[in-house]
Amino acid sequence: MTSDIKAALRRQRIETPSWAYGNSGTRFKVFAQRGVPRDPYEKLADAAQVHRFTGVAPTVALHIPWDKVDDYVALAAHARDLGVAVGAINTNVFQDDDYRLGSVTNPDAGVRRKALDHLLECVDIMDLTGSGTLKLWFSDGTNYPGQDDIRARQDRLAEALAAVYDRLGEGQRFLLEYKLFEPAFYMTDLPDWGAAYAHCLRLGPKARVVVDTGHHAPGTNIEFIVAFLLREGKLGGFDFNSRFYADDDLMVGAADPFQLFRIMYEVIRGGGYTDDVAFMLDQCHNIEPKIPGQIRSVMNVQEATAKALLVDRDALARAQADGDVLGANAVFMDAYDTDVRPLLAELREESGLDADPMAAYRRSGYAEKIVDERVGGTQAGWGA
Amino acid sequence: MTSDIKAALRRQRIETPSWAYGNSGTRFKVFAQRGVPRDPYEKLADAAQVHRFTGVAPTVALHIPWDKVDDYVALAAHARDLGVAVGAINTNVFQDDDYRLGSVTNPDAGVRRKALDHLLECVDIMDLTGSGTLKLWFSDGTNYPGQDDIRARQDRLAEALAAVYDRLGEGQRFLLEYKLFEPAFYMTDLPDWGAAYAHCLRLGPKARVVVDTGHHAPGTNIEFIVAFLLREGKLGGFDFNSRFYADDDLMVGAADPFQLFRIMYEVIRGGGYTDDVAFMLDQCHNIEPKIPGQIRSVMNVQEATAKALLVDRDALARAQADGDVLGANAVFMDAYDTDVRPLLAELREESGLDADPMAAYRRSGYAEKIVDERVGGTQAGWGA
Amino acid sequence: MTSDIKAALRRQRIETPSWAYGNSGTRFKVFAQRGVPRDPYEKLADAAQVHRFTGVAPTVALHIPWDKVDDYVALAAHARDLGVAVGAINTNVFQDDDYRLGSVTNPDAGVRRKALDHLLECVDIMDLTGSGTLKLWFSDGTNYPGQDDIRARQDRLAEALAAVYDRLGEGQRFLLEYKLFEPAFYMTDLPDWGAAYAHCLRLGPKARVVVDTGHHAPGTNIEFIVAFLLREGKLGGFDFNSRFYADDDLMVGAADPFQLFRIMYEVIRGGGYTDDVAFMLDQCHNIEPKIPGQIRSVMNVQEATAKALLVDRDALARAQADGDVLGANAVFMDAYDTDVRPLLAELREESGLDADPMAAYRRSGYAEKIVDERVGGTQAGWGA
Amino acid sequence: MTSDIKAALRRQRIETPSWAYGNSGTRFKVFAQRGVPRDPYEKLADAAQVHRFTGVAPTVALHIPWDKVDDYVALAAHARDLGVAVGAINTNVFQDDDYRLGSVTNPDAGVRRKALDHLLECVDIMDLTGSGTLKLWFSDGTNYPGQDDIRARQDRLAEALAAVYDRLGEGQRFLLEYKLFEPAFYMTDLPDWGAAYAHCLRLGPKARVVVDTGHHAPGTNIEFIVAFLLREGKLGGFDFNSRFYADDDLMVGAADPFQLFRIMYEVIRGGGYTDDVAFMLDQCHNIEPKIPGQIRSVMNVQEATAKALLVDRDALARAQADGDVLGANAVFMDAYDTDVRPLLAELREESGLDADPMAAYRRSGYAEKIVDERVGGTQAGWGA
Repeated sequence: MTSDIKAALRRQRIETPSWAYGNSGTRFKVFAQRGVPRDPYEKLADAAQVHRFTGVAPTVALHIPWDKVDDYVALAAHARDLGVAVGAINTNVFQDDDYRLGSVTNPDAGVRRKALDHLLECVDIMDLTGSGTLKLWFSDGTNYPGQDDIRARQDRLAEALAAVYDRLGEGQRFLLEYKLFEPAFYMTDLPDWGAAYAHCLRLGPKARVVVDTGHHAPGTNIEFIVAFLLREGKLGGFDFNSRFYADDDLMVGAADPFQLFRIMYEVIRGGGYTDDVAFMLDQCHNIEPKIPGQIRSVMNVQEATAKALLVDRDALARAQADGDVLGANAVFMDAYDTDVRPLLAELREESGLDADPMAAYRRSGYAEKIVDERVGGTQAGWGA
Repeated sequence: MTSDIKAALRRQRIETPSWAYGNSGTRFKVFAQRGVPRDPYEKLADAAQVHRFTGVAPTVALHIPWDKVDDYVALAAHARDLGVAVGAINTNVFQDDDYRLGSVTNPDAGVRRKALDHLLECVDIMDLTGSGTLKLWFSDGTNYPGQDDIRARQDRLAEALAAVYDRLGEGQRFLLEYKLFEPAFYMTDLPDWGAAYAHCLRLGPKARVVVDTGHHAPGTNIEFIVAFLLREGKLGGFDFNSRFYADDDLMVGAADPFQLFRIMYEVIRGGGYTDDVAFMLDQCHNIEPKIPGQIRSVMNVQEATAKALLVDRDALARAQADGDVLGANAVFMDAYDTDVRPLLAELREESGLDADPMAAYRRSGYAEKIVDERVGGTQAGWGA
Repeated sequence: MTSDIKAALRRQRIETPSWAYGNSGTRFKVFAQRGVPRDPYEKLADAAQVHRFTGVAPTVALHIPWDKVDDYVALAAHARDLGVAVGAINTNVFQDDDYRLGSVTNPDAGVRRKALDHLLECVDIMDLTGSGTLKLWFSDGTNYPGQDDIRARQDRLAEALAAVYDRLGEGQRFLLEYKLFEPAFYMTDLPDWGAAYAHCLRLGPKARVVVDTGHHAPGTNIEFIVAFLLREGKLGGFDFNSRFYADDDLMVGAADPFQLFRIMYEVIRGGGYTDDVAFMLDQCHNIEPKIPGQIRSVMNVQEATAKALLVDRDALARAQADGDVLGANAVFMDAYDTDVRPLLAELREESGLDADPMAAYRRSGYAEKIVDERVGGTQAGWGA
Repeated sequence: MTSDIKAALRRQRIETPSWAYGNSGTRFKVFAQRGVPRDPYEKLADAAQVHRFTGVAPTVALHIPWDKVDDYVALAAHARDLGVAVGAINTNVFQDDDYRLGSVTNPDAGVRRKALDHLLECVDIMDLTGSGTLKLWFSDGTNYPGQDDIRARQDRLAEALAAVYDRLGEGQRFLLEYKLFEPAFYMTDLPDWGAAYAHCLRLGPKARVVVDTGHHAPGTNIEFIVAFLLREGKLGGFDFNSRFYADDDLMVGAADPFQLFRIMYEVIRGGGYTDDVAFMLDQCHNIEPKIPGQIRSVMNVQEATAKALLVDRDALARAQADGDVLGANAVFMDAYDTDVRPLLAELREESGLDADPMAAYRRSGYAEKIVDERVGGTQAGWGA
């Protein structure tokens, strides 16, 4: 049993995002930190540290154009040299003045074309870097009732998605993201899983829904969505992070670790604990240091996964079949209440890693090194 | 223009629910009111009053078993005698001790069978009463994490829905309802439009989603859902009511009249202002008198509809195409800010109705009459 | 250290409510369970079982008139014979037809007087039973904008509270409860801690605020309220329960155990872990068995308390002073992630209790006994 | 009656904020607009246009340091030359790297001192500009449980507030703002009206609470808070804006005009329609043009006020006293449903203004003029 759990944990892969290593903030302030990367190469170097100490973060998501380089083949080679690989290519059609009223749903056909061209360019980058996943998030929506036509915007969205879908090559797919609100404050063109699902369904098997854990209305049962999408064969992955009310930049598991456990349980129970479902972090570290923030986040996902793997599914199934409400809940909670940190420490040591990735990183001197070395140039940040 | 609007308003049909005329309340208390119906026949009589004074409420939804009678053919004939007709048949698989852990999703196959039998019986009642619409709401869900298997419950739900779908005859359809929470407090088997939509899509054209305006998480843009479902051809109708935070029993339009206007606008814009999309009230009157509560609710829907019809769609389309945010919003708000009560008063008078249905009902003496006559027997209420 | 924690845990007292042992439900359905008490004496007997197996639940809250008896002195003596004592007296001014539009805030002076008389009668019952605590919850509010005057209702509320306050004797106090919504759906007369606090402040030291963990809007930081009220000397206690979105009847700790831990931490840190701050359960068990539901709830509070006591406050203070965001969070989480069940099992055995209260209760045969014995009569339930 | 209403509307004063005229945006993107002011003088010039066309916006709130100038006496004189005056001085202790972990609640005493110095400097600016109002908003809070000590932060906050309070001169006061969340995502040091009220109460009559309409949790009844604070003599004013879910930058009245009406009704009913309660806009225009956005916002407040003034309070009081739920609601809704735009148009013409401020501004050519003239230099924006 424990050996099965360890084997499962050993296979886990958690992708970190290049933007987590740069400066970030809120609309009120971006706080600069010392030692922050100045280009995509340095971001990859930082990401490689997270993999070095956790052993389960071997890929790095890129964000275009934040990670724009002249030679993507060289960038991918650089990643490999660092012991990591390029992960999902994240598109960005929200940081250009042209996108004030939307990107692919903009009333202006010229803007829509520009946005689509960017999406297609990102598939080119997939070809160059060997990435198999395109992540599509649209900030599109409206701020005021009447501002634009809800339905016409869906037509435009469908058209753009179809064009991107058609461009995907062998072994490539896209993940479509939804979000309740922000930065559109009245109507978002993809506000919930249902809308993303409906679009993906029409397109075919290469289109899947990605669940960002911070993108739901209060009271939403996220693990239900996970279970439902898995049953429909349409769950493509996760953007992990957490939030108490809104803004989704806290470390995954920081706000509601029990929810994360429930989500991981549904992934496993629904057969989603495979390469088909990507575990990606999508969070920034506004006030805490970036690399340790990522390490801690990776560990939080590991701990939730370990607990979810610990659920005694036979006992659970029996109690459920018996209609034993308290009994079933007790089986479930027994796994959650278990302290899995010793198990994970053991696992790390068996893999030649330090039992405590946070301490090992701290001792490594890397944090001091980048502060010393990364002087001059422009720090990377959202939008850079 | 005004004549088009009047013509459109004249065609409108708003269904009232038999349960609105009986006593109702919260988990804390049901407050009894004098003169309340004691059987389905008296409920129909009260509903007929709403139609008499508004002219747009010619059908009455039934709820089985609350409206169980020996002879449904006679009940339908009685309705016709009163100038109304039987509307949607609402199923009830939540008020039996057997349904403690669910109805069609219950882990116990016997309970599932019982629930399904009830649903099929309701189709029999459709045959007998001539009703074309079956409304399916399931209170099914769980209160505690781990209590039951989320996915297995979906399998059971799908099986039951398929059985009901297959039983539907020519000219019959069902409307599937979703609800964020209550009475299941951890996980609801049909929590959102996406889940209802996915099930309906698999089944075929006789299965449609019904939007209950009180069943969403805070921040949900309901008119988006309306527009989306219309675009997909899957909007079957509305259960109208309103709520500020939760519990969905306030009169439609009472909590957020601007939202109701936006919803009606999307109905019209999306081609849903036809017999295909049913406008039904689903609300109770816990503290206010029932018949006037229904009349006022009908009027609220009419006013929102009139305002939505007033939107200058050409001007709106121009402003939207120009990306004129404030201009488009202004066109939209201009319709909302208009006082449409004179228009509706005029329309009523043209139709031989009193301009003021509330006052006319009050003057009619019906309220006093039922208080006098309905003495003895058991008042109808939720569960009766 | 461990001995200090054990000593603290040994002193803990958690009050169970008499209504948790009777039938309860939602507005949709009350599911009857076999063996449920038929009178206040049997409720006390059940509560005594919870104390018998947990050792930390020596008092039982009463609800008047649900627990109305002819001889309260005898009831209190009966409790003592069972090894428990009467706890807080909970008032009920919501289950009478007169209270349709409110109790102490009702526009009708006669209804207000009736409600006040009930409150004063409850203080009489405190005198008779030796209870030191009166719990005041008002379901008062309005359903529709304009229905009543918000400010006039505050004046009426203040008047009633002053009358009750003046009636309190030596060693008696009242706890004032607030609630976001339900059963008033538009405006609640005491919707938040601020309103309860302002009233208590004017009255004096015998008036304190009680925090019901299920009574807040989404996104509310409850532990902040706890910390704030403790700093102001105005926290009187807790009504523990949990909820995911609304309806506050789930077992405490079932929905968000991390939140419960954070709350307990603030209680301890703010000096509230004394007899001054009452820990009371206020929850019902709609679908699960009642006595085990209470035992489990008591254990959940114990576990959260143990974790909160485990926080290394020196290390935490250092990290906080250093502005070490991740370090401080790690100290905090280290306590939460610890499995405290072995510690509590040990503590129970040291106190002569079974290490596993749930199993011990199950083995005791009490559940079967009451099913056999409690035949005939009327089961107790909400409203009975 | 109408003349009374007109007189009341004529006295209304709505303050516009200097930051509404500059560029603004979300954490994702600030969209630049042409013709935006480059310094505080140009912001005042734009604000003067809003007053010119509405006649009710004679003061302009400043934000320090965004509106920092060498000579505040000259700035105030410039304002007067433009026909406006300096309004509230808004403090800013959130846009400096030192404030990463808070300003007046920062664990570092040096940072606290720096923040306090800024607040005191703002009182100096009040002396120089003749402003009577200091607006205090603290972005202070924490992102992670355990990050800092909730109670210690309250102590620090109380200390800073006392120091500012003591510095206030004759005829000066401060308004204390609260906010549910953002940019602190776990715990905000002033999250709700209760916390702001408690601090103001301890300090004395020169400290009042300001209600920002966009700063509440879902389901919060804002008009209750208004009524409550007025009853306590602690309402100092409003920051008007609106939001559907979060982010509070939409034009006041755009998201829920019925709510705005209810708020204005409570202001009037509670005796708050005086100079004591400030009506201030606090919103930005991320995608729409700024000056028209402000004009429209001012008009929205005027319309809500006119409707609130129209409520037949005698009829309302009678229906409320009678417990006539539908009747009282109908009186209330009758005012809301009235189209008050003709009344306001008339009022404007009587005051020598154009009946349609939006059209008049458009015709004035001012928008084109500033686009032509304001070339070169740095546009003003959040943080500039």
